Amino acid sequence: MSNTFYPPERLLMGPGPSNVSPRVLSALGRPTIGHLDIAFIALMDDIRSLLQYAFNTHNDLSLPISGPGSAGMEACFVNLVEPGDKVIICKNGVFGQRMQENVERCGGNPILVEDDWGQAVDPEKLETALKTHNDVKIVAFVHAETSTGVLSDAKVICDIAKSYGCLTIVDAVTSLGGSPLYIDDWHIDACYSGTQKCLSCVPGISPVTFSKEAVNQIKTRSSKIQSWFLDMTLIMSYWGEGEKRAYHHTAPVNSLYALHESLVILKEEALENAWQRHDANHDLLKNALNKIGLTLAVPEDIRLPQLNAVNIPNGVDDESIRKTLLGEHNIEIGAGLGTLAGKIWRIGLMGYSSNPQNIARCATALDAVLNQN
Amino acid sequence: MSNTFYPPERLLMGPGPSNVSPRVLSALGRPTIGHLDIAFIALMDDIRSLLQYAFNTHNDLSLPISGPGSAGMEACFVNLVEPGDKVIICKNGVFGQRMQENVERCGGNPILVEDDWGQAVDPEKLETALKTHNDVKIVAFVHAETSTGVLSDAKVICDIAKSYGCLTIVDAVTSLGGSPLYIDDWHIDACYSGTQKCLSCVPGISPVTFSKEAVNQIKTRSSKIQSWFLDMTLIMSYWGEGEKRAYHHTAPVNSLYALHESLVILKEEALENAWQRHDANHDLLKNALNKIGLTLAVPEDIRLPQLNAVNIPNGVDDESIRKTLLGEHNIEIGAGLGTLAGKIWRIGLMGYSSNPQNIARCATALDAVLNQN
Repeated sequence: MSNTFYPPERLLMGPGPSNVSPRVLSALGRPTIGHLDIAFIALMDDIRSLLQYAFNTHNDLSLPISGPGSAGMEACFVNLVEPGDKVIICKNGVFGQRMQENVERCGGNPILVEDDWGQAVDPEKLETALKTHNDVKIVAFVHAETSTGVLSDAKVICDIAKSYGCLTIVDAVTSLGGSPLYIDDWHIDACYSGTQKCLSCVPGISPVTFSKEAVNQIKTRSSKIQSWFLDMTLIMSYWGEGEKRAYHHTAPVNSLYALHESLVILKEEALENAWQRHDANHDLLKNALNKIGLTLAVPEDIRLPQLNAVNIPNGVDDESIRKTLLGEHNIEIGAGLGTLAGKIWRIGLMGYSSNPQNIARCATALDAVLNQN
Repeated sequence: MSNTFYPPERLLMGPGPSNVSPRVLSALGRPTIGHLDIAFIALMDDIRSLLQYAFNTHNDLSLPISGPGSAGMEACFVNLVEPGDKVIICKNGVFGQRMQENVERCGGNPILVEDDWGQAVDPEKLETALKTHNDVKIVAFVHAETSTGVLSDAKVICDIAKSYGCLTIVDAVTSLGGSPLYIDDWHIDACYSGTQKCLSCVPGISPVTFSKEAVNQIKTRSSKIQSWFLDMTLIMSYWGEGEKRAYHHTAPVNSLYALHESLVILKEEALENAWQRHDANHDLLKNALNKIGLTLAVPEDIRLPQLNAVNIPNGVDDESIRKTLLGEHNIEIGAGLGTLAGKIWRIGLMGYSSNPQNIARCATALDAVLNQN
């Protein structure tokens, strides 16, 4: 007979999920109400307004998709890409690869602008590609590459894309709440994020925002959107204004309680303070790692403070160290992906998890494990 | 400044969500762990085995999709339907309509076998359609139509479909855990459900199961699956056997704690006892409603015990009654949809909510509200 599951108490310092704030867990566990309840509709309105704050946008169409970040990504692509559309993907890690998959599955024509894993997106290469290819409709890229710990300059990339009349789709899964992100000022047309990174909310929900230009594009497209579940024209009717909401699907009520609370916490701290805290804790981690002989893999000017790629020293067995850290110290850090597997660890300092106590505990444990092996 | 949200305490007797068991809410609020944590992988294995129990199946590919029932529906259609495929949809309510949308968006060719809203799917009409149309690949229908409260005979319908060599896709969103459902014995090839109905778990997750024949079809299809997020060939690698799981997306960790607990509760009660309890409470509700002068809309032999369509008496204002019930008594019942709007209420008796105390409270309140208006 199966029994109730009691999770072990882990310190989550990988690429996400991060540790969820106790306030968010409390919100999550409150009694479920109906997805068309007048009290729930008021909550939806408040979530929209809090997402506008977090995204730095006035976009009306700012809402949580009822699925994880990859559903948010797909929502952006299936709504904006029509068969035959040319889409430039600036690819410098796992999630650029996934964007390419999305474009292909929408019948679009992906044009790759590639940088090595561990490098930022090169704006000059993008400009060259835009000069070479006519009629590019969309430029898409990852703001904060979770697979490598690299931040790209979203403002510069979007400026170039806009000067060629393109729409922009930006992956902000790891940046939202951790690094500066200005949807309106930077001219981002569609952006998706996740809840389990710097918002320190439970995984499974993807905040998205769409500009007026993107909404206009969606409303005037000539082909039908290939996903019913992610069709923004239908989702808009449920997340619309006023008391009258058209039923589309049953919202993940409790997860939205949790998202709401995580956004309330973010606003209480204030975005700028949260960004500063992530920066300051990154410095603490860097120093703590240096003291135990570990170095960071990403150059300082393109380094993500919330996700640190750490060089694995020569001769050290990646997997056995991570297993011991988890098994004996209850600390989770992340493995490298793709070409970086076995070469880096990924240490996250995201949201609620980003604090000096966690850094000290992680560095001490890592030092002990490295020396016992 | 936005504040923490405290939901009102509602008695949920609509079409779902149903009231979530306190045990499930406790599980939901436990600390988050990583989606690749060894402890989480053990939980995933247990969820699969519990879903096999609930679905009455030996299908290896039994898992929860990380999105609501409509994502589960889409997972079945995008994986099994290829462009040009003929799919018969037996349509007798809202969710048959949604199946049609899915087939069209996959580039398939839907053939409708229609019955009036409030009627069961007519097996003879299906047989006639199968005689008329060659090369039908799939027959799809809704087992328990949530929009009308009608149960169709899934065994008979699947027998006919199979005798013509078709795959079967069945919507069991409202039936799973509330009415008999036998995936293997009835030859159902793909089935999706929801968590927020008779499992009394939080909304946002969709249990699915696929037969060997369906898996074979998915693995040998000639066109690429149009959704990356719902591509079962990728999801299988994460939900596969053993410790090695390929990362696909971040699982909704806490919602899966909740789903697990709801399935543990179902197994403790035993499926057959849960079905019997839903039947017995349906009888109690019917008698309680008759006493206050209300009648049921659906003929007894095709009536769903967990979702009761109640005729709204002549001259009674649907919306004002529901508003008063919610505002003054904290009881939610459902409105009619489509052609049944204003004609019926939908009173749910699902999972944890299906008990004599709730029936007495609901009937008493409804009587009071009807007489005060």
